[in-house]
Amino acid sequence: MECSDYNLTRHVERENLNLNPLQRAGMLTPEARRALYEFGDGYSVCDYCEGRLDQVNKPSINGFLDDLAKFIDADIVRTTHGARESKYIVINKICEPGDTIVVDGNAHYTSHLAAERARVNIIEVPDSGDSKHEITMDKYRETLENAIDDVGEIKLALLTHVDGDYGNVTDAKKFGKICKDLGVVSLLNSAYGMGRMPIKTNKWDLDFVVGSGHKSMAASGPIGVLAIKDEHAEDMLKRSPRHEKKEVELLGCTSRGTPIATLMASLPKVVERVNKWDEEVKLSRDFVDKLTEIDGIEQVGVRPTNHDLVRFDTPVLHEIGKNHSRKGFYLYEELKNRNIVGIKRGQTEWFKCSTYGMSKNQRDYIADSFKEIVEKYK
Amino acid sequence: MECSDYNLTRHVERENLNLNPLQRAGMLTPEARRALYEFGDGYSVCDYCEGRLDQVNKPSINGFLDDLAKFIDADIVRTTHGARESKYIVINKICEPGDTIVVDGNAHYTSHLAAERARVNIIEVPDSGDSKHEITMDKYRETLENAIDDVGEIKLALLTHVDGDYGNVTDAKKFGKICKDLGVVSLLNSAYGMGRMPIKTNKWDLDFVVGSGHKSMAASGPIGVLAIKDEHAEDMLKRSPRHEKKEVELLGCTSRGTPIATLMASLPKVVERVNKWDEEVKLSRDFVDKLTEIDGIEQVGVRPTNHDLVRFDTPVLHEIGKNHSRKGFYLYEELKNRNIVGIKRGQTEWFKCSTYGMSKNQRDYIADSFKEIVEKYK
Repeated sequence: MECSDYNLTRHVERENLNLNPLQRAGMLTPEARRALYEFGDGYSVCDYCEGRLDQVNKPSINGFLDDLAKFIDADIVRTTHGARESKYIVINKICEPGDTIVVDGNAHYTSHLAAERARVNIIEVPDSGDSKHEITMDKYRETLENAIDDVGEIKLALLTHVDGDYGNVTDAKKFGKICKDLGVVSLLNSAYGMGRMPIKTNKWDLDFVVGSGHKSMAASGPIGVLAIKDEHAEDMLKRSPRHEKKEVELLGCTSRGTPIATLMASLPKVVERVNKWDEEVKLSRDFVDKLTEIDGIEQVGVRPTNHDLVRFDTPVLHEIGKNHSRKGFYLYEELKNRNIVGIKRGQTEWFKCSTYGMSKNQRDYIADSFKEIVEKYK
Repeated sequence: MECSDYNLTRHVERENLNLNPLQRAGMLTPEARRALYEFGDGYSVCDYCEGRLDQVNKPSINGFLDDLAKFIDADIVRTTHGARESKYIVINKICEPGDTIVVDGNAHYTSHLAAERARVNIIEVPDSGDSKHEITMDKYRETLENAIDDVGEIKLALLTHVDGDYGNVTDAKKFGKICKDLGVVSLLNSAYGMGRMPIKTNKWDLDFVVGSGHKSMAASGPIGVLAIKDEHAEDMLKRSPRHEKKEVELLGCTSRGTPIATLMASLPKVVERVNKWDEEVKLSRDFVDKLTEIDGIEQVGVRPTNHDLVRFDTPVLHEIGKNHSRKGFYLYEELKNRNIVGIKRGQTEWFKCSTYGMSKNQRDYIADSFKEIVEKYK
């Protein structure tokens, strides 16, 4: 048979300033690029495996997992195939079909899917209902208490640490305390947090924290992190009665190739950048300030932002498209001409973007480019 | 914090003749190495996603999945995180906790773990009980019929297409017919087959076939294939009521980075090599013949072999170790001196190996090296 051409190039996204929030903090470090070369072949981390991925010592996966646990202040960590897979592992193991869990109203779709797959019902914590779309811990506590009253037992509560729509950062520490007070197991989805900002699993009294290597930890996808409090380890990491080295919920081994090799290679740099999170937030706020100087561009979500992922309402850009010969496509094209990509073709009414990791000059250049485009067509 | 050194190099395995059967057919093609470079960054295949991974058209994941389906004669295919994950998806969806499935006695440990995780019991089809360790279809039918009599309903039967201990190739076509006759859903684990040898999902009347990209399809791990017969598609690929584009059992999207990019890049070469499977088997048999010319080395499993993965009993090598100053380590060291790796340090009583994809000269060189080593110490 003849295979078609799959168009396996990506120079546009590699060579331009990419604003896609999904992709900014998953870009590889030079160290990870080297690991990609070394560990590109299939089962490449398994040369010296004695039956347990987490105990492989060449490359030092065991040493890496120890460092990773320390980095996020966790008792035990495992890698999985992604934050969503980590969430499914927890929900599926902690709950029975028919159980109900509590989830914040800004949860990622994969939190819903993980619950649906485990056949578990969801009660939602509503957001503030205004343009901030904030999830407050008062509302979380109230919803969780009501859920316990109504349903009886709530086995698990999930909080989205940083949501993917507005980049709102929730109060994970208060969440941990609320869950502990109410005797509910807590799960923090930190796919947009871990690898960008500091995570304190134990200090925040959390039972489980999940992260995403490809979203926020400079790793090749797909790879996730699952942090587990000691008291859940026996249950969550139970071994197979038949294959005594193998952890059942992980199907033996999980991430076993370039994803883990690149995550390992990037960790030192990721530790470094997390230490500079405050600087990153400041640069992000400056960018927002500059962009919202334009009449008809407003930030949506909590202000000032506490994250690099930011959402904007952009009526001025939408108006321009109505009279432009290229309709809504003009924005994508004008940006691309200026080497800026990552906002979908045709989208003008609103967009979310991230300038994570860019220099101040690059961010200024992007804000100025928007100003230029608005000026040009005003 | 200070990270330790994870020793992220792999030149020994990359630069020598590697006999590890887990790794031979997962080595990247030059095309896949290029894709690794292009798609190394996290979420790299998601630039033009409209919500469904399988429908992304730049790179052409949709075109690739069509080609892959054609290649293995399947109605529908999806990629997963590995053969084990594919098996879990099928078992977990087809069965309820407490159900019983039938599995061949040479099944990979991950088949057991997938069943354990889905809380499903296993009835095993015994092998031939001699040094061939053969799984015959007569015995499979008998066991399955007895299981139906004893348990009532058997919802699923799993056959290992090529087992990882002996490289025995089972009769997948007869298995498909038996299951169809008895009204049992069939699942073929072809982790050591798909990508090496021809797979005819529909012609063999199979409901599900799983494969492994990193084990047998020249892809970076972890990535698996799941082939689905049309009649199961609605159930298996059911969409979320809340997120209508997202398939629940796949948690929305599965393989989303270098693993799928490398699998796509390698497919044309994989199609080519599968067409030459007969040649590969001939070269493997020649290698076995040459190696078993040595007194005290015997092939275990079905003879002549029908696969590149072969297991040997090697009492002569074990005897040498008893008197060698380096004990059992001599073999690893003698081989490594000859640029041959992939047999575990200290292992001398038996080993399994693969010469998949090597030239005749390379295979002869390896067999001659074993001869030399035996001669040296006899």
